[in-house]
Amino acid sequence: MIESVNNAKVKEWTKLQEKKYRDNSNTFLVEGVHLVDEAIKKNLVKELIILEGTPSNYDIPYSIVNEKVMKKICNQITAPKICAVVSKLKEQEICGDVLVLDNLADPGNLGTIIRSAVAFNIPNLVLSLDTVDLYNPKVIRSSEGMIFHINIVKKDIEKYLNTIKDTYQIIGTNVVNGEFIENIIDNRPVALIIGNEGKGMNEKYNSLCDKFAYIPMNNHCESLNAGVSASILMYEIAKKRGYHDKI
Amino acid sequence: MIESVNNAKVKEWTKLQEKKYRDNSNTFLVEGVHLVDEAIKKNLVKELIILEGTPSNYDIPYSIVNEKVMKKICNQITAPKICAVVSKLKEQEICGDVLVLDNLADPGNLGTIIRSAVAFNIPNLVLSLDTVDLYNPKVIRSSEGMIFHINIVKKDIEKYLNTIKDTYQIIGTNVVNGEFIENIIDNRPVALIIGNEGKGMNEKYNSLCDKFAYIPMNNHCESLNAGVSASILMYEIAKKRGYHDKI
Repeated sequence: MIESVNNAKVKEWTKLQEKKYRDNSNTFLVEGVHLVDEAIKKNLVKELIILEGTPSNYDIPYSIVNEKVMKKICNQITAPKICAVVSKLKEQEICGDVLVLDNLADPGNLGTIIRSAVAFNIPNLVLSLDTVDLYNPKVIRSSEGMIFHINIVKKDIEKYLNTIKDTYQIIGTNVVNGEFIENIIDNRPVALIIGNEGKGMNEKYNSLCDKFAYIPMNNHCESLNAGVSASILMYEIAKKRGYHDKI
Repeated sequence: MIESVNNAKVKEWTKLQEKKYRDNSNTFLVEGVHLVDEAIKKNLVKELIILEGTPSNYDIPYSIVNEKVMKKICNQITAPKICAVVSKLKEQEICGDVLVLDNLADPGNLGTIIRSAVAFNIPNLVLSLDTVDLYNPKVIRSSEGMIFHINIVKKDIEKYLNTIKDTYQIIGTNVVNGEFIENIIDNRPVALIIGNEGKGMNEKYNSLCDKFAYIPMNNHCESLNAGVSASILMYEIAKKRGYHDKI
């Protein structure tokens, strides 16, 4: 059992809290039984870290650690029973509807959006190069394991939108001008763009958009939380696509 | 100008980070120009705390502080230009639709829900006694000033639901069984119950509900973020009530 926070392995695992170490090793950390199980199902777990006293029968290399070490690795007040070093997800070819996130800054919002995208059958998520890191522990936690059920790709958005503009219906978001999304969705695959929490969608993408979607709201309220806006729009797309009838 | 974090006033303001001091003084702290302006409009500001160098022409007692002191008071990495000690909101009589939060734990979710409730014209919010404190700084921040545009009341939910059950349509939420909310809303005022993030709505309220609402979602996804669920259901209520046509 590893009992010291100064152990070399512990130091290595702890570094996965930082983006540059995740990028160097091409791995990230997932915490808790639910997330670890999802990662195992996808064959992505490289090594397990198990809290002492936790029953386990995994066929994967593992280390046992004490509570102090587990808290250190996960940077959490409460130690999870298990965590895992997991290979980063492979980017797949984009096929079908896609949500495009332009400079999304808050990791909780990104996690929430991933969870909602899976719920509403959006199979692809494109992250702009300046969006918060997908493998930030707060993103992973708030996505509730849904990162393993969606194709997530990092791209230069402007270039990407230019490559799809003849085949996709590109829908921008605008808190002032726009139409009800249910009135504008047609049979083409949709690329829906959600902007930064404070600044909204970058205006340079305006000319690439076929239409702008808008969620009607009371005058007192300037905008909704970005995770909420994205979720409501995806919910309407799912409804329009008829997924609500099938489930 | 106050330059020391050991100044007696600074110590007093800093204590407003903690619930017991907010409860004792019946005040709380709001940060940033936007929130302070909203609080001033409602005549709730008792005193302003202004960062040195910030132009200000307020007709309210104020203190000037340096950056170190401002960061200390607000427990933030970046100092806001202004913050204010504000009287807690007065609870009003509940009239019309109401969102009931049962043991909501996450302050970010509560703030997001307040913002969405204002956006979707829900005039009342009832918080169970075990819901996260409304005046938690994270709630205030994520509500984006919307706390000043909605009636928020703290109540024993079970007693409250019993008093309204003959006049309200009480709608529970259930991630497995339920109906589309747009199919169940009638002309009575609605009391929509949103449960705890992990445990959902307490089953003891089941017998008080007229109907259960459900958001259809992909099988991979067990549930949505509580702020997202609440927002989608309020959005549908607003649509049903015809608010979308008026705005």
